[in-house]
Amino acid sequence: MNKTGFVSLVGAGPGDAELMTVKAVRLIQQADVVVYDRLVSADILSLIPAGVSRISVGKEVGKHCVPQQQINEIIVNLAKAGRNIVRLKGGDPYMFGRGGEEVQALNQHQIPFEVVPGITAASGCSSYSGIPLTHRGMSRRVQFITGHFNDNEPLDLNWQSIADPDSTIVIYMGLSNLPLAIHSLIDAGLSCLNPGSCCAEWHNTEAATCDHNT
Amino acid sequence: MNKTGFVSLVGAGPGDAELMTVKAVRLIQQADVVVYDRLVSADILSLIPAGVSRISVGKEVGKHCVPQQQINEIIVNLAKAGRNIVRLKGGDPYMFGRGGEEVQALNQHQIPFEVVPGITAASGCSSYSGIPLTHRGMSRRVQFITGHFNDNEPLDLNWQSIADPDSTIVIYMGLSNLPLAIHSLIDAGLSCLNPGSCCAEWHNTEAATCDHNT
Repeated sequence: MNKTGFVSLVGAGPGDAELMTVKAVRLIQQADVVVYDRLVSADILSLIPAGVSRISVGKEVGKHCVPQQQINEIIVNLAKAGRNIVRLKGGDPYMFGRGGEEVQALNQHQIPFEVVPGITAASGCSSYSGIPLTHRGMSRRVQFITGHFNDNEPLDLNWQSIADPDSTIVIYMGLSNLPLAIHSLIDAGLSCLNPGSCCAEWHNTEAATCDHNT
Repeated sequence: MNKTGFVSLVGAGPGDAELMTVKAVRLIQQADVVVYDRLVSADILSLIPAGVSRISVGKEVGKHCVPQQQINEIIVNLAKAGRNIVRLKGGDPYMFGRGGEEVQALNQHQIPFEVVPGITAASGCSSYSGIPLTHRGMSRRVQFITGHFNDNEPLDLNWQSIADPDSTIVIYMGLSNLPLAIHSLIDAGLSCLNPGSCCAEWHNTEAATCDHNT
């Protein structure tokens, strides 16, 4: 009987291979198998050594290639077979990454694991767009919300409590529900910087980007 | 006259040198000068090559060794002298890191710069504590707030809008105001998991940790 393997649940960051952690790169190079998501970029996948197996469990919005339950089973079975697995996820495993569900499955099967944080999309966007998440006198609170619920549940967030003008609001997976989010936040009291055009612009943004998301 | 230098405002992550990004490590090794905060760990400082100058501008809570204005001046003057500077900050530069203020100073002096995100403390704590920031059916919103305002302003946050039981709340720099934060959140409707003892426990925690923070 095989000795149980080990699972490293690793955040790959926002996409640039240089924004991976030193630890993530080391673990990929020491793994037997890398199980990865759609959000992991080609540059990052190119770091996986030739002898290491790769399994794609890519999930796309509105089109779950491999259901979460099946991803859990793949990882558990590989670990039971004694493999050392890097489970590579875009961004950070515990920020809108369903890492907690995979860890629950590992715990149920008594499989040893570690979680390695990654740079979440909000930090990457903030640095590259030049919009600080906090800034003295402007934003002293940051909110991360999801613009997409599982199983296509309606987006019934408490917009009133989210619409704090002293906070930065980051919407993950928000493109398909962007007009709804914008209108809900304006209805809840946030101001629109360019009232004559912003809503129309957002509608155009949504029309232009929906193709990639549905 | 010297050619103007270049500033890389770099997030060093939560402290473990292996949780730095590959890019952060590369930039440190290519810098002329590293200007660093108190929150940057000894392990990380040990990555700075022997020939690279180091300047500590360490800030401690309640005891600002070097005022922000002076930090800005140090960086601007080094850049004007043609040096390539890594400005190394704990966590992420744009998340409670005052990176935006340093970037404003660089912009004013037309000094070229880049911002490199780092793993913020919340992601590190989440991964190592086993508390996912989001989890299906439990938390679909994450809030980062500060427990410490500049110039010792009172902590007048809108606790009512923060106290969402379906969110994870992360308090940065929260130790000295922890009892206030806990009581404010309970008053605003959050439940205390262990009503008989939690408030007393928090008081003890505060008493035990205040020494390091004041």
